[in-house]
Amino acid sequence: MISIDDFKKIEIKIGKILSADRVPETDKLLKLSVDFGEESPRQIISGISVYFPDLEEVVNKKCAFATNLEPRVIKGLESQGMILAVSGGEGENTFFSLLEVLESVPSGSSIK
Amino acid sequence: MISIDDFKKIEIKIGKILSADRVPETDKLLKLSVDFGEESPRQIISGISVYFPDLEEVVNKKCAFATNLEPRVIKGLESQGMILAVSGGEGENTFFSLLEVLESVPSGSSIK
Repeated sequence: MISIDDFKKIEIKIGKILSADRVPETDKLLKLSVDFGEESPRQIISGISVYFPDLEEVVNKKCAFATNLEPRVIKGLESQGMILAVSGGEGENTFFSLLEVLESVPSGSSIK
Repeated sequence: MISIDDFKKIEIKIGKILSADRVPETDKLLKLSVDFGEESPRQIISGISVYFPDLEEVVNKKCAFATNLEPRVIKGLESQGMILAVSGGEGENTFFSLLEVLESVPSGSSIK
């Protein structure tokens, strides 16, 4: 169990995915450019490549990201946040989903 | 900034909203019954009543909840979790959204 103060330490914001590219020499990684309504988009590296055979399916999605984690360098690329997703199951029961919001939500909105 | 360990303290799970009732003598509160694939559904009290003039719009949604907060008592009702949402804006620009996942995601799945 955690307190509400522990929860409030975490910043979760809605970002709009502007572009997605596969990271060369990896099977799993996507390099995302994500708009949070800030001066410039953030680069976010995420291990979700296998779930998007067609990268156009991820572009323009508005979904939830953890945005105040210390930046991490993954395969030499800085990741300035973490996309939130659920995945699991096996074989035919494999599932994956991002946490999406309505199109009317502005980029950069915070979860309360 | 927080560390990944701080982030991992928080449990975010997908719940399916089984029912929603307005809490009498309040304008804002909904009493939700939410399935997380546990033995019995959880009761979750949430201040989202104004966003759902038609309660049928919230029933059956699969969306994200913080599930390891200390239970809170709100208007005499125990809340065993917190629904995650974004809201803001004014007048015509008011927005509100839950964080929804695909129907294929099982109740109780954890965000990674």
